[in-house]
Amino acid sequence: MDKLHFTYEDIHRTAKDIAERVKASGFDPHMIVAIGSGGFIPARILRTFLSKPILAVGISYYDDEDRPTDLPRKVQWIEEAERKLAGKRILLVDEVDDSRTTLEYCIRELMRHEPSEIAVAVLHDKDKEKRGVIPDEVSRYFAGLRIEDRWVCYPWDADDIDAHDEAARKGV
Amino acid sequence: MDKLHFTYEDIHRTAKDIAERVKASGFDPHMIVAIGSGGFIPARILRTFLSKPILAVGISYYDDEDRPTDLPRKVQWIEEAERKLAGKRILLVDEVDDSRTTLEYCIRELMRHEPSEIAVAVLHDKDKEKRGVIPDEVSRYFAGLRIEDRWVCYPWDADDIDAHDEAARKGV
Repeated sequence: MDKLHFTYEDIHRTAKDIAERVKASGFDPHMIVAIGSGGFIPARILRTFLSKPILAVGISYYDDEDRPTDLPRKVQWIEEAERKLAGKRILLVDEVDDSRTTLEYCIRELMRHEPSEIAVAVLHDKDKEKRGVIPDEVSRYFAGLRIEDRWVCYPWDADDIDAHDEAARKGV
Repeated sequence: MDKLHFTYEDIHRTAKDIAERVKASGFDPHMIVAIGSGGFIPARILRTFLSKPILAVGISYYDDEDRPTDLPRKVQWIEEAERKLAGKRILLVDEVDDSRTTLEYCIRELMRHEPSEIAVAVLHDKDKEKRGVIPDEVSRYFAGLRIEDRWVCYPWDADDIDAHDEAARKGV
């Protein structure tokens, strides 16, 4: 399968574009909730343009012995902050909407704390059959780009950032 | 005061260099603790090279009404995860060691949970008089670069990433 490379600059521009669409939509979140660790970088860039605090949650598909698990597991959750979620407007952020499983899991967990509104923002939405669903309670869904179902190479995963940027430039 | 611009690629290479020095030192952390929101991006890049989970803490110098405060305030803390810190080796990550106040605050808070070891990693250490101190209990301190006491422009704060990269290229 062909890989798809994005540079940090691509990611930055995509996050800026999402922020502009969030603002244009009239949605004014009280806070950004970043799904770790993939959502950390897009959330931090979104913060530049939306000027909202970030709360982080950590999700893993590996257990404590580093064995893969079918269901997501909380590495970190919000706890005391959860008490602040009631009645609040939340922008939930991740890097990619792949199978949608993580997003659905996080949305359902957040909904238990009765925020007034949840919107979702992802850099990339893969055009594929989804195993998870976005619950009806989610008012808005922002995807920076809709992409083919290919292996995405994010810059923060690059061992050699120059080789990564070169691959992105060549469109491979 | 002259500003100092770093590109994302600069940051990526600096984080990789820090990771190599962490490994060469023999320090093998159980987890990375990112100080939000400045530490989110360096922590996520470090994770690529160190393969450790990230826990996030959020610190703010603004109160709930967005008024500046002298002392740091917890926006998010680790809570349930704190119970996992006892006996663990932690790599605490932030983007810059400026006045050292935030680092000292976070280190002292983490120490209350009796980790076996705390090391600190920052992308940049400003060469200036510090108001905070690194407690003696901190075993290792990794600074990617030691820099002059100038205004640092990080790429994630850029409104226009191309203009930012151009400023970095020109060394202004």
